[in-house]
Amino acid sequence: MSQPPDQGSTSRRKFVVGAAGLVVAGASGKAIADNPKNQPPNVPEWTRTLGDGVGVRAYGTPSKFEKQVIRRTVPWLTATPESSVSFTPLHELDGIITPNGLCFERHHSGIAEIDPADYRLMIHGMVDKPLIFTLDELKRFPRANRIYFLECAANSGMEWRGAQLNGCQYTHGMVHCVQYTGVPLKTLLNEAGLKSGAKWIMAEGGDAAAMNRSIPLAKALDDCLIAYRMNGEMLRPENGYPARLVVPGWQGNMWIKWLRRLKVGDQPWFTREETSKYTDLMENGKARQFTWVMDAKSIITSPSPQAPAKSKGLTVISGLAWSGRGKVVRVDVALDGGRNWRTARIDGPVYDKACVRFYYEFDWSGEALLLQSRAIDETGYVQPNKDDLRKIRGVNSIYHNNGIQTWHLKPDGEVENVEVG
Amino acid sequence: MSQPPDQGSTSRRKFVVGAAGLVVAGASGKAIADNPKNQPPNVPEWTRTLGDGVGVRAYGTPSKFEKQVIRRTVPWLTATPESSVSFTPLHELDGIITPNGLCFERHHSGIAEIDPADYRLMIHGMVDKPLIFTLDELKRFPRANRIYFLECAANSGMEWRGAQLNGCQYTHGMVHCVQYTGVPLKTLLNEAGLKSGAKWIMAEGGDAAAMNRSIPLAKALDDCLIAYRMNGEMLRPENGYPARLVVPGWQGNMWIKWLRRLKVGDQPWFTREETSKYTDLMENGKARQFTWVMDAKSIITSPSPQAPAKSKGLTVISGLAWSGRGKVVRVDVALDGGRNWRTARIDGPVYDKACVRFYYEFDWSGEALLLQSRAIDETGYVQPNKDDLRKIRGVNSIYHNNGIQTWHLKPDGEVENVEVG
Repeated sequence: MSQPPDQGSTSRRKFVVGAAGLVVAGASGKAIADNPKNQPPNVPEWTRTLGDGVGVRAYGTPSKFEKQVIRRTVPWLTATPESSVSFTPLHELDGIITPNGLCFERHHSGIAEIDPADYRLMIHGMVDKPLIFTLDELKRFPRANRIYFLECAANSGMEWRGAQLNGCQYTHGMVHCVQYTGVPLKTLLNEAGLKSGAKWIMAEGGDAAAMNRSIPLAKALDDCLIAYRMNGEMLRPENGYPARLVVPGWQGNMWIKWLRRLKVGDQPWFTREETSKYTDLMENGKARQFTWVMDAKSIITSPSPQAPAKSKGLTVISGLAWSGRGKVVRVDVALDGGRNWRTARIDGPVYDKACVRFYYEFDWSGEALLLQSRAIDETGYVQPNKDDLRKIRGVNSIYHNNGIQTWHLKPDGEVENVEVG
Repeated sequence: MSQPPDQGSTSRRKFVVGAAGLVVAGASGKAIADNPKNQPPNVPEWTRTLGDGVGVRAYGTPSKFEKQVIRRTVPWLTATPESSVSFTPLHELDGIITPNGLCFERHHSGIAEIDPADYRLMIHGMVDKPLIFTLDELKRFPRANRIYFLECAANSGMEWRGAQLNGCQYTHGMVHCVQYTGVPLKTLLNEAGLKSGAKWIMAEGGDAAAMNRSIPLAKALDDCLIAYRMNGEMLRPENGYPARLVVPGWQGNMWIKWLRRLKVGDQPWFTREETSKYTDLMENGKARQFTWVMDAKSIITSPSPQAPAKSKGLTVISGLAWSGRGKVVRVDVALDGGRNWRTARIDGPVYDKACVRFYYEFDWSGEALLLQSRAIDETGYVQPNKDDLRKIRGVNSIYHNNGIQTWHLKPDGEVENVEVG
């Protein structure tokens, strides 16, 4: 909102240039005239009537005015909805916590609907004592609470061959960040007792795909969890209810949902999901395998194609950054397609392998801009631009596209997904 | 889960004594016989059929097996549901984040249902320039992301005269903890310009109660926010959509929802909500006024009356602690009604004026116990027991009962709300 032009400039004006606030009646007669509805200082309708009481929604839902804040699908993307994706509406969110109802989905055979009373988790293979746990038994072990991002390996995958999808929900919406509660995997493996020579585990889901991945034992003993809660409540069915694997910083397909079985072995299993799928096909026809870690990445969520700028003046650039290798230590923003970088302001918690929220506030005079962001993590790694990635990786890849995204902010406030040379 | 008795004792057994796990077929033939349903190593039903695909729930909901995880009301508590309470099911949650759909409600005239396009916030009184902001204008100011607890002043209020309600949802369920995104109140007050002599603000809601409270300017300029998001998404209607005041560490009624107006003045307004209500009636008939801060408090959420212990052996005591005066630095747990205190394990983030999660793991041999917890905050304050509180405050109070709660864990695993002398 603006100060009236006759009030002169003060240091406070840096935040208000060009914004469109009203001055209330008393300071200016314009307020009422510009404000024909029943708003302050008039009494709005909702102040003149009782609202719904408690108990109307035993489990709450968003306002009816937020119906556009939903996960969205791309029907042409896959042959069937049971083996497809829905995307988190990143452009409609802020902060670092993703509400459970908006966490993206990726299934290989649909959502297994498991009765928790009948849930079992088996640990077998190269262990001293094969074991089966019920859910209640898992809840008897000491618990850990950890905030982590989860990103699908294929997030931004459709951008390898050039800017394609108009909105960060589609280009980057296969990432979410919640607080998990569960048992450190190390605790359960120690319970079973690892045999000498054990080097890998295979995790298998209870869905019809029996989704499975080989995971190095060193990672399993490091920071993996068997989680049964997200953001306080039990996991949602589409996120693996009643228990899933949490593999911090590594690609989402390894975070086996509806976790049914952990087999300990001395070598990887080379399953379909790590041979024909989830490998990175290089220009020379060879494929990189076991590229587990999700490298540092960031995205400006607003302004963005689905969240255009509403007017000139003070504009908040808001975005998310994350790294599978540890903490994000800095995020840079460019307004000119990457020629000049400015340090963004990180606000809120900064955790290892979790999303951080960054902001860059500036006074937009209405000229066309090329908005970019890049994340730098504690290893010193700097998020690369897409062309540099393509020089090394070619354009056959589906996975691990962490290239810098460019949004073309136009004078009318609309935003388009573009590439810069 | 247990190792079979013939496998001998190892250091790992400390976590498994008395738990009831099965040994899989191969190690013992008992597994299949004890396991008549289609569970591993058999193939369960949900692995033999495709589940729902993506897009079935554009905004996700909990599993159908979690229908008991809801906010609950106590119909006899108030004359009408529009001026009542629904309680967070603390016994069904873990970690520190409360999912938005389970945040307790307290309304004075029901839920104002505000069209965000027509929302206005007015700042007036002892300011240089009275201002009105639209929601879009609020979103143009630099944002902060903060995790805070919010507790109703009347939380545990029914326990002043003795143990009454059987479950922490009812005794302590008027607290929740989320990440807020919003504008520091200081930013907006500076925008309007504070006149010399300004010492207080009055915040008023847009609901039919026009709920209002006087707040010292020092607090307003310290850490208050005008929040429009919780856990990433826009506020829920019952939590003040589209914008509310966040008054960290202070009683919930001051966190004015559906925030409509901020008036700056040189003294408090002595409104109904700080004279006839939200004052603490002492034994001598006088009332304490402006008792804003919520002192350190904790509650064991499991085992608890609504979450009985399921069997002997390894038992995880899980609980929440918080303090309106800063960080919780320690939580103690007693199993014997407060004679012997042991330090609990805090796991997960510890923020200023936010909930922390604590655990105490022990091997329960099945004897009756009197479970208690007490929070200690960074000021050195130790959560008091109820009788010590009553010695000072009497039993006329409704508000600010932060006394130590006692759960009587019985040999059959049932838990009852009791008082100890």
